[in-house]
Amino acid sequence: MSKRMIACLKEKQVDHYPFWFMRQAGRYLPEYRKIRESFPDFLSFCYTPDAATEVTLQPITRFDCDAAILFSDILVIPDALGQEVGFTPGHGPKLRPIETAAEITRLEEKRAEEFLQPVFQAVRQIRKSLAEEKALIGFAGAPWTVACYMIEGEGSKEFAKARQFAYREPIAFSQLIDCLVRVTTAYLSEQIKAGADVVQLFDSWAGLLPPDEFKRWVIEPTQQIVSQLKTLHPDIPVIGFARCAGMMLADYANSTDVDGLGIDTSMPLIKAREAAPKQALQGNLDPLLLATDKARIMTQTKRMMKDMKGTPYIVNLGHGIVPHTPIDHVQAFCDTVREIRG
Amino acid sequence: MSKRMIACLKEKQVDHYPFWFMRQAGRYLPEYRKIRESFPDFLSFCYTPDAATEVTLQPITRFDCDAAILFSDILVIPDALGQEVGFTPGHGPKLRPIETAAEITRLEEKRAEEFLQPVFQAVRQIRKSLAEEKALIGFAGAPWTVACYMIEGEGSKEFAKARQFAYREPIAFSQLIDCLVRVTTAYLSEQIKAGADVVQLFDSWAGLLPPDEFKRWVIEPTQQIVSQLKTLHPDIPVIGFARCAGMMLADYANSTDVDGLGIDTSMPLIKAREAAPKQALQGNLDPLLLATDKARIMTQTKRMMKDMKGTPYIVNLGHGIVPHTPIDHVQAFCDTVREIRG
Repeated sequence: MSKRMIACLKEKQVDHYPFWFMRQAGRYLPEYRKIRESFPDFLSFCYTPDAATEVTLQPITRFDCDAAILFSDILVIPDALGQEVGFTPGHGPKLRPIETAAEITRLEEKRAEEFLQPVFQAVRQIRKSLAEEKALIGFAGAPWTVACYMIEGEGSKEFAKARQFAYREPIAFSQLIDCLVRVTTAYLSEQIKAGADVVQLFDSWAGLLPPDEFKRWVIEPTQQIVSQLKTLHPDIPVIGFARCAGMMLADYANSTDVDGLGIDTSMPLIKAREAAPKQALQGNLDPLLLATDKARIMTQTKRMMKDMKGTPYIVNLGHGIVPHTPIDHVQAFCDTVREIRG
Repeated sequence: MSKRMIACLKEKQVDHYPFWFMRQAGRYLPEYRKIRESFPDFLSFCYTPDAATEVTLQPITRFDCDAAILFSDILVIPDALGQEVGFTPGHGPKLRPIETAAEITRLEEKRAEEFLQPVFQAVRQIRKSLAEEKALIGFAGAPWTVACYMIEGEGSKEFAKARQFAYREPIAFSQLIDCLVRVTTAYLSEQIKAGADVVQLFDSWAGLLPPDEFKRWVIEPTQQIVSQLKTLHPDIPVIGFARCAGMMLADYANSTDVDGLGIDTSMPLIKAREAAPKQALQGNLDPLLLATDKARIMTQTKRMMKDMKGTPYIVNLGHGIVPHTPIDHVQAFCDTVREIRG
């Protein structure tokens, strides 16, 4: 049985409507919380292949989505590079922030691949357990977004420290981005070798950049990663998700050569389609609507599928599912997709 | 002597390049900090006409900008409506958040206008002291953004509580927005009667909304305010600043009938011009660039003026100036504008 995700992304087949949802292996699931509790530390949870395999498969078991996404975190990359990374419950990630250009040269690029072996092991196990018609999505944070955390040291509204570092130290910042391009390419390539059928680059903070910086720190590094991955693995589609790209979406789509485009909640799908006629689009139900209004979930899901009819489209959210989302809302979303695609 | 701002906004005269910058009366100025210190409470500072007048005029004295913007805060509206509002240094605003529909009906709409008299007094004093060729900009927060703070109770990355309230209680939320439309219209109308030559609506959190909600909570209320202001004061131009409107900019521009459009840092001015051919555009230098890189400030300012050549354009930032901005950077920005416009 062929994979809906691949038909949509690679062959650009229309009206297949594969669905999955960002952060589908997550805290809104009681079975996830149960496993999560047994790990005091979030990253050791990510690095335990059996645990990562189990939680990756949970949403497939429950909702029969068309794709599983590897359970991991974008900050395994800084961790692999030797930067101190921790997660404090309720406060998100804390990193020892990079403050000088010198610290960038001390990142331990060579150890990264070996360090990340448990992730590749998880990918192998997941692929083995997953039904053939389901796609396994590997992923990484895009260089700009990962660099944001590495410099800011934590989540932030504006990532002002990171953006200012890029202005003040463009050469050093460029070295950091280049390093992340290399490590991320190798990381995704290994995920593919281990069994990932698709990979997605998450650029959550792309929207914070002015147009020139967007080209330099979002488009160019993404372009480099995609082009290298295409050389190594010509059959593996890449999804790029430059959140809040706004009017830069067309540039991003045209320049990066991604096969699929994640669309955030703020963008009308029809306008995204005009801006990016070649790619499969993926998105963009508001996770807060999913958490709140069961009746509108169905209306909105139908409307997205109608708006994208006749074009390659992956039903998804516009951002990660939120922890307080009721399970029956997620079920309603999945049932609606299945009902319409027949 | 005629006002450059009015020529640009109302008569759509091109290549006048008026300039001012958002939050120009602010903490980056030592003379501002000196006055600020003498008020333990931020809102009493806003409500003291002599102090508000003095700080409003400070950037004009120093930089000879083409417009002064009333020194005040968008949260005087919830304060005037009887909601508890405070400012804790370093942490921004704190409001007693609205949690139920019932609390919305208890807002004291009738007392708002009387309560805000000190603001109108400040406008009268400023207009009296300001040179005739300088425009005085009055302003208010747009209903959506003010409602965000009223429900969230503080600044936030995502304003999830506010957005979820709008989903869960659309009727009550709509009542809140309607109340804010009425109060904001009256508030801006009184500012105009007191001497404001232009008014700006700040919708800082517009970009958080999906397209349907953007239409309902950003475009419609703005449209109502603008249409009522145009009836009352047909000669007074209105600038709308829907930050991070992204692909919704054209809809916002066409539907609201604003005379000028604030453009945030993320948007290429040339694409904004295509999306909104009728309006004067205002923006969009990155405040972090202004704070960081003196050489690039000049290059970037020249480039913005070149990109907007032959169209009505107000040179400005894409967001408020940040407190650590060196004064000589601001001076370089102003000098560049003056040098080019000759």
